[in-house]
Amino acid sequence: MVDDTDDLVVRTPEAFRRAGIDARIRHRVSTVDLRRRAVEVVDLDEGRTYWEPYDHLLLATGARPVVPEGIDPGVAGVYTVKSLDDARAIKLALQAAPGAFVVVVGGGYIGVEMAENLRRTGRSVTVVDRNATLMAHLDPDMSALVTASAIRLGITLALEEALISLDAPGGVVRGVETDRAHHPAQIVILGLGVRPDAALAASAGVPLGAAGAVHVDEACRTGVPDVFAAGDCADAYDLVGRRHVYQPLATHASKQGRVAGLAIAGRPARFPGVTGTSVTQIGSSDVSRTGLGEREIRALGLDAASAAISSTTRVGYMPDSSSITVKLWGERGSGRLLGGQIVGGAGAGKRIDVIATALSAAMTVEDLLGLDLAYSPGLSDTWDPVQVAARVLVRDL
Amino acid sequence: MVDDTDDLVVRTPEAFRRAGIDARIRHRVSTVDLRRRAVEVVDLDEGRTYWEPYDHLLLATGARPVVPEGIDPGVAGVYTVKSLDDARAIKLALQAAPGAFVVVVGGGYIGVEMAENLRRTGRSVTVVDRNATLMAHLDPDMSALVTASAIRLGITLALEEALISLDAPGGVVRGVETDRAHHPAQIVILGLGVRPDAALAASAGVPLGAAGAVHVDEACRTGVPDVFAAGDCADAYDLVGRRHVYQPLATHASKQGRVAGLAIAGRPARFPGVTGTSVTQIGSSDVSRTGLGEREIRALGLDAASAAISSTTRVGYMPDSSSITVKLWGERGSGRLLGGQIVGGAGAGKRIDVIATALSAAMTVEDLLGLDLAYSPGLSDTWDPVQVAARVLVRDL
Repeated sequence: MVDDTDDLVVRTPEAFRRAGIDARIRHRVSTVDLRRRAVEVVDLDEGRTYWEPYDHLLLATGARPVVPEGIDPGVAGVYTVKSLDDARAIKLALQAAPGAFVVVVGGGYIGVEMAENLRRTGRSVTVVDRNATLMAHLDPDMSALVTASAIRLGITLALEEALISLDAPGGVVRGVETDRAHHPAQIVILGLGVRPDAALAASAGVPLGAAGAVHVDEACRTGVPDVFAAGDCADAYDLVGRRHVYQPLATHASKQGRVAGLAIAGRPARFPGVTGTSVTQIGSSDVSRTGLGEREIRALGLDAASAAISSTTRVGYMPDSSSITVKLWGERGSGRLLGGQIVGGAGAGKRIDVIATALSAAMTVEDLLGLDLAYSPGLSDTWDPVQVAARVLVRDL
Repeated sequence: MVDDTDDLVVRTPEAFRRAGIDARIRHRVSTVDLRRRAVEVVDLDEGRTYWEPYDHLLLATGARPVVPEGIDPGVAGVYTVKSLDDARAIKLALQAAPGAFVVVVGGGYIGVEMAENLRRTGRSVTVVDRNATLMAHLDPDMSALVTASAIRLGITLALEEALISLDAPGGVVRGVETDRAHHPAQIVILGLGVRPDAALAASAGVPLGAAGAVHVDEACRTGVPDVFAAGDCADAYDLVGRRHVYQPLATHASKQGRVAGLAIAGRPARFPGVTGTSVTQIGSSDVSRTGLGEREIRALGLDAASAAISSTTRVGYMPDSSSITVKLWGERGSGRLLGGQIVGGAGAGKRIDVIATALSAAMTVEDLLGLDLAYSPGLSDTWDPVQVAARVLVRDL
């Protein structure tokens, strides 16, 4: 447990200032004037507005939580999950109403992580999601494993239900209405992911890309000279799908920030792109994916085959060995590796990194078979589960 | 704990026979006649000798434990560590003499694993090794971390000492003599690694390669038509050092066996080579390496730089986060990744697989920085420790 949300602040404004960076918090940029090469700044505390010129401009405006059409996030008892302020507000609400029923809307990473942690504190939690399984960014066979874990944890699932409205007479929530049911709730958490906060860029005329995020190249340059973008407001090149995508994750944000900084300083730097890697935990399982899944493969019209195998995280005769399911996708004809998904016990999740690295190197499934992966009975099996899956898949390509 | 050594048998002779394979145990091949395309077989139970013709011959004669010049492994109380029979003999000896002092000769993987497990049962264990640290296949700074772990476990170390002779009056061991001391011991375990058992191949005229192992190409073909070799008797191509090496490990043996079988069946198959990956555990630490280390880099005359960083296996604010040290080597000029070593808490060891995969793909250190590795606060840090090391190293290349 982290006791104080302040402990989650990676770097304070003071730390930036000590590093010689003029960090102005509570200052909002209201306009970007590309022709004048200046931004209009509102000092929120002093109430004054001024223009600040720039040589280079970095847009790092981040993302906003998704709030469905017709839902008022200002209703009492309704919370989004994005900022530390959100976390503090949820924590206070939970403390004030220990017996409150909680509904989490959205069964992706954020929704499932919220639901699990609430359940662990003994609360009644219902997750509402329009898909047939939780974590529907995984293939149905893999997300079914996650759904089973959630049920074992005692999380109530309202799947294949779409949120229609809040039941909130007098501006205080008492439940949610879906297209199929009414779920009572004193606390509603909207865990529906985020959208890029690209309004400032858009109004200035900076071109947008995937999912309405600021479009950037591999040096984080936008379509406008001397204007860069990085992080959750920007898109990124997908090395596997070979098109730009929007994947607002801390890892990409950190790397894009580094590359943009180096590029602005005139040094060579390159963010080659993403492969779509993510990992989380539910119950005692790790859940991870990288590359393309069934849905993206179908959308891209690729001719592909998959193989899913179940094995153990260690040699079967070792104690503490737990199960691991690995699914791989490969392209027919070329044999190219397209993606992988893993659900398994402790330590299983980070094994996705081998697949992510192989994707970055544009390896074939056959190449995976040749990899010299580490083996010791207490840490893995002689044939790493990723290679067992490759051995099965390679026959179908 | 594994209760019965029989549980360690991966496949019994009966299982082979059920698969339609004529498995003849207790039959020794005494001669290979390449011209006649036949092998001379001794049936050890019946005492008869016969010739068996072949279309294809696979040499899978394995390896033998190293026994130093002048040491008689037949002395009572002295054991090698290679076969299940060795394991059974050691187990019996330990049961028969619960208070026996044990000396393990050799501080590599096998020696350290033996010493740790003996120590955990409360025994007095001394490890004798001629190097200044345990696990001297790691760089000195990394192997020093392992040595410290061994000391914390209460293992007595006799480092920079070379075994000279056994103190075994009447054929029963009571100690070992090194060039610097006498160490009392009722049980002596020789954990000095293995040498290829290539005598049969050599006497037949099959060309040998690295370390006297049977030389094979990427389809496990030897220099003689229709004769193949696989496993601990064969060498392998080192993808990083770009020469053949001898690395007798279960992972390579399994892969070579598969490839040799496919090749003999006339199907395309390729064992591209090894990158020198290995992993083990000592105390609560995982210890792993892949690629070239300081010693090999010096021997190959490469112009290289290294960086070692310490980080945490999870985000620092998370519970159960443990320390991890990652060291990387890269080639100056080309920027090519040359190798990596990891010492760290639970889950750290298998992270070497990312480096092994990157080596297989001939990635640069800069390429490592771009990898889309999985992040979740409970499973890793935003910048994976491998990438933190790459970020430091890239400045020196």
